[in-house]
Amino acid sequence: MANWETEISSSGDNSKVRGIDLETVMDMPFSDAIFLILKGEKPTERESEIFNTILSSCIDHGIGNPSTVASRTVQSGGNSMNTSVAAGIMALGDKHGGAIEECMDLLQSETSAEKIVEKKLEAGEKIPGLGHKVYEKEDPRSMKMLETAEKLNLKGKYTEKMLKIHRIFGEEKTRLVLNVDGAIAGIMSDLSFEPELGKGFFIIARTPGLVAHVREEMEQPDFRRVNGDYIGD
Amino acid sequence: MANWETEISSSGDNSKVRGIDLETVMDMPFSDAIFLILKGEKPTERESEIFNTILSSCIDHGIGNPSTVASRTVQSGGNSMNTSVAAGIMALGDKHGGAIEECMDLLQSETSAEKIVEKKLEAGEKIPGLGHKVYEKEDPRSMKMLETAEKLNLKGKYTEKMLKIHRIFGEEKTRLVLNVDGAIAGIMSDLSFEPELGKGFFIIARTPGLVAHVREEMEQPDFRRVNGDYIGD
Amino acid sequence: MANWETEISSSGDNSKVRGIDLETVMDMPFSDAIFLILKGEKPTERESEIFNTILSSCIDHGIGNPSTVASRTVQSGGNSMNTSVAAGIMALGDKHGGAIEECMDLLQSETSAEKIVEKKLEAGEKIPGLGHKVYEKEDPRSMKMLETAEKLNLKGKYTEKMLKIHRIFGEEKTRLVLNVDGAIAGIMSDLSFEPELGKGFFIIARTPGLVAHVREEMEQPDFRRVNGDYIGD
Amino acid sequence: MANWETEISSSGDNSKVRGIDLETVMDMPFSDAIFLILKGEKPTERESEIFNTILSSCIDHGIGNPSTVASRTVQSGGNSMNTSVAAGIMALGDKHGGAIEECMDLLQSETSAEKIVEKKLEAGEKIPGLGHKVYEKEDPRSMKMLETAEKLNLKGKYTEKMLKIHRIFGEEKTRLVLNVDGAIAGIMSDLSFEPELGKGFFIIARTPGLVAHVREEMEQPDFRRVNGDYIGD
Repeated sequence: MANWETEISSSGDNSKVRGIDLETVMDMPFSDAIFLILKGEKPTERESEIFNTILSSCIDHGIGNPSTVASRTVQSGGNSMNTSVAAGIMALGDKHGGAIEECMDLLQSETSAEKIVEKKLEAGEKIPGLGHKVYEKEDPRSMKMLETAEKLNLKGKYTEKMLKIHRIFGEEKTRLVLNVDGAIAGIMSDLSFEPELGKGFFIIARTPGLVAHVREEMEQPDFRRVNGDYIGD
Repeated sequence: MANWETEISSSGDNSKVRGIDLETVMDMPFSDAIFLILKGEKPTERESEIFNTILSSCIDHGIGNPSTVASRTVQSGGNSMNTSVAAGIMALGDKHGGAIEECMDLLQSETSAEKIVEKKLEAGEKIPGLGHKVYEKEDPRSMKMLETAEKLNLKGKYTEKMLKIHRIFGEEKTRLVLNVDGAIAGIMSDLSFEPELGKGFFIIARTPGLVAHVREEMEQPDFRRVNGDYIGD
Repeated sequence: MANWETEISSSGDNSKVRGIDLETVMDMPFSDAIFLILKGEKPTERESEIFNTILSSCIDHGIGNPSTVASRTVQSGGNSMNTSVAAGIMALGDKHGGAIEECMDLLQSETSAEKIVEKKLEAGEKIPGLGHKVYEKEDPRSMKMLETAEKLNLKGKYTEKMLKIHRIFGEEKTRLVLNVDGAIAGIMSDLSFEPELGKGFFIIARTPGLVAHVREEMEQPDFRRVNGDYIGD
Repeated sequence: MANWETEISSSGDNSKVRGIDLETVMDMPFSDAIFLILKGEKPTERESEIFNTILSSCIDHGIGNPSTVASRTVQSGGNSMNTSVAAGIMALGDKHGGAIEECMDLLQSETSAEKIVEKKLEAGEKIPGLGHKVYEKEDPRSMKMLETAEKLNLKGKYTEKMLKIHRIFGEEKTRLVLNVDGAIAGIMSDLSFEPELGKGFFIIARTPGLVAHVREEMEQPDFRRVNGDYIGD
């Protein structure tokens, strides 16, 4: 049986987070503390700014998506804040919030931008990071992130690769917007985050939105139902 | 059937969070964005500072507590980041992370500090916000928070009530430290947060720690087990 | 730290469930095995029959309720069978499936049927076990259960108390059907089950329905959303 | 947006499960009702017997495994029956209870028994369905299942394929027991169940055990912790 060991934090008389005293962490901006706990080191000033922008950009996105529906439905069944928020996080699977991780995987692979587009076109598959239901010309959030990254001189090879995929796909198939998942995946990769943290990052950013939705749902008198049909025999 | 309506955020062409354009939110410190989404208004500069301190103080607390154990055990069974983090949040029930909410309830009730101590002593119940397993003289985290609140001129009637409960209990029964739950409950109450958000607040602050633990657990080859005994017939 | 000890089962070379060899349990009807593991003893033949009837009666109940919505929504986000079924079970809170437990509590309390009705009428509260959205004259499921209990000579003091509450409430206020929660609560109490198992019992019975719904949802191409409105500023 | 439609069940005045009146379902053995809801048809008498045996065999397996640990840990944090049971089900991921599904996939694939063993040996991977930590000569549970299948004349091509894999692997590498996952996978495949239901089936069977563990945990005064070490800086 494996020991329960961690490099993340300690509790008790001398609490630390990644080797830094908890009292020092208390003085750090929360988004820096998040960077620290995920990566094991503090962000530079420039990293801090872009990382914060990304977190704030994902804080909530309306009432209709699966995670919000799951959280509010579970709350409405008569459940606690923690159980209801957890249900929303559970909804954040491969198809909902999963594009960041998938896109980071692609960008950090050995495969070139040209080859990625070629393969995806052949397979008839979507490219994560491209396309949006509402935005046709451009996604203002990814534009803003990329400008910030540019301004901070943080646009590295992964963001460039994402932009290249975007350009080639536009030339060879059809122009789609570079969406917020694509921008985040590029920048997070340039910040040396692993794909395995792509989903975790989104979970952290969205949890405040879920807490707010669960609190709002507590004021509803009835539980959530849908009108459905039985189409069996 | 109730409509799905929200005052929290909108998605699509003109995304907003509590009436503020998402692009503006992207420029806010993440902890300010959290304050905004929970409370419906931006924090002042002083509120921003103390709120950030509280969030950062709860980011993680070692490997041994129920939420970390639940997250890592579920991950070790072969599960996704989102499912594993959710399991940790589920563990944050009434007895684990619940003291903030309970304490906010008490502070915001009509009952005076004297009466609260009297009742709790009569009932032989613990007072949330007092006592700590490790710290005997003082809890450095709550000291730091209270100093920050003092410095920012944010120590209001609820924090004073908490301090009074602490003092009276020490005189009438035995001296216990004012722990971090008590300090947070007082300050959050003075920031006009409702008790219903006490647990949600802790969930937001702790989620980054759970993400880090789940990521670390992914490197373990085997699943988590305990040595247990059958004591039946 | 408490030891991990259990009276429920053992694994390994000599696996047992409540003192009975697992190989013997394998020959028992599944509903008898459920009775055994919950209660620590095998049911009599008559207990076995009514217990099975109750379990089968709760196996599923359409697509529109919160647990089904939660399970299918979480699956649609791109999640595993286990995560999706868990989300449905999480939805089974105090307001959804919770009436059995609440009703068992009431029946097993010292308070008489007369007093229960009186108190509930005074408080303007619903009585768990009475009333149904669809059925106005009678709930065929509870009728069938009560007939079976009668036939098996298992209608004891708790079921009688439930029937008395039903009769008094009809005389003093308005006639409501005795619903399936009320019938189950009465019979389960007569079988000497504690209220604490009321919800667990319902969870066991409904899980097969949730598994079927999650499997069906896997065939849907898109994720579940709702049409919602932003009513903020 | 997809309509909410189902072939599984309806609620209300004329409740049905897979086309059969709920009142008729109430007279069916619970394991037959489970078969019905998963498969859309009632089992024959022989199918009913083996299906019941499989369900009862998985009802619980000691206190030390991840699902039990997760359920009990979450309960100990001060949580409800439904939340705690859900946490245990969440732990049932690819590595814990996942072998049935993986094995059904393998058996129902076009690849022959010989080819499966060859490929797995080449890749240095385990074969699901073979091997057990405790049992060295044979797993009494799988023996019993296979005997029952034989007796009922239900041992079909998939069970035979599993036995063949077992035999070939023993000849070419080393003798391992045919474990309970392998026996279940073979028999379930012969009953024409799809691999996608392998995990769901196990969830249904294990839920009663989790309910019993959560109930037992409620009697514990403290929450569950582990002794862990901080090995960071």
